Amino acid sequence: MSDLDVGQAWLDALKWDAQGMIPAIAQDAESGRVLMFAYMNRESLQETVRTGNAVYWSRSRNRLWRKGEESGHYQRVSAVRTDCDGDVLLLSIAQEGGIACHTGRESCFFHQLDGQRWIAVDPVLKDPKDIYAK
Amino acid sequence: MSDLDVGQAWLDALKWDAQGMIPAIAQDAESGRVLMFAYMNRESLQETVRTGNAVYWSRSRNRLWRKGEESGHYQRVSAVRTDCDGDVLLLSIAQEGGIACHTGRESCFFHQLDGQRWIAVDPVLKDPKDIYAK
Repeated sequence: MSDLDVGQAWLDALKWDAQGMIPAIAQDAESGRVLMFAYMNRESLQETVRTGNAVYWSRSRNRLWRKGEESGHYQRVSAVRTDCDGDVLLLSIAQEGGIACHTGRESCFFHQLDGQRWIAVDPVLKDPKDIYAK
Repeated sequence: MSDLDVGQAWLDALKWDAQGMIPAIAQDAESGRVLMFAYMNRESLQETVRTGNAVYWSRSRNRLWRKGEESGHYQRVSAVRTDCDGDVLLLSIAQEGGIACHTGRESCFFHQLDGQRWIAVDPVLKDPKDIYAK
């Protein structure tokens, strides 16, 4: 907390986990909808801030993940916040194409708990085959 | 993903990390503001769903953290979502007192990156001394 206030290098002020990662929440700047949750390392956060396009760290592919590089669904970042502990990021973004999820939905958070079941409650806006077909 | 659809027990359908935790984002159901980020274990999520009040797992105190137990700032949960991977939760909440952060601010995400510095951009609504003094 105090690290965030004393002008220490902004990257060092964050709490990176043992793998050098910090979780990041992407929120639509206009609608307020939470679209995605992913991880960043230092390099991806630096590139995000430098370019204004969201760049994550893909833990499955073990490489930088420039969101939109395959889908065209880039995320323009208008603001970056962190919480009182400095261990999570909140990005305000404009979502290119209005689709953040690889399933073709606006948000990755499309399963809602209904009693004892998770129900997919949001529509598929675009067939993933048409998003990723090149 | 498919685990979420096939009617497997709803708790088993989630991806719990090696410590048995899942991250949870708390979002104000009305304003859309992201208020907090914390972790839940199975017990805390079950109690959250059963009682409708957000219960987290405090990693620092190593015990259930019934949000509001000291501050009175309870969170009434109106919906629980998860993402396409089933490894993050998104709670829609009504924040008692309009203050989620222990610093007396509405949201824990009150530091915004401004050039190379994190700036506290949100007002303190209530002095923490008055929140926690009992």
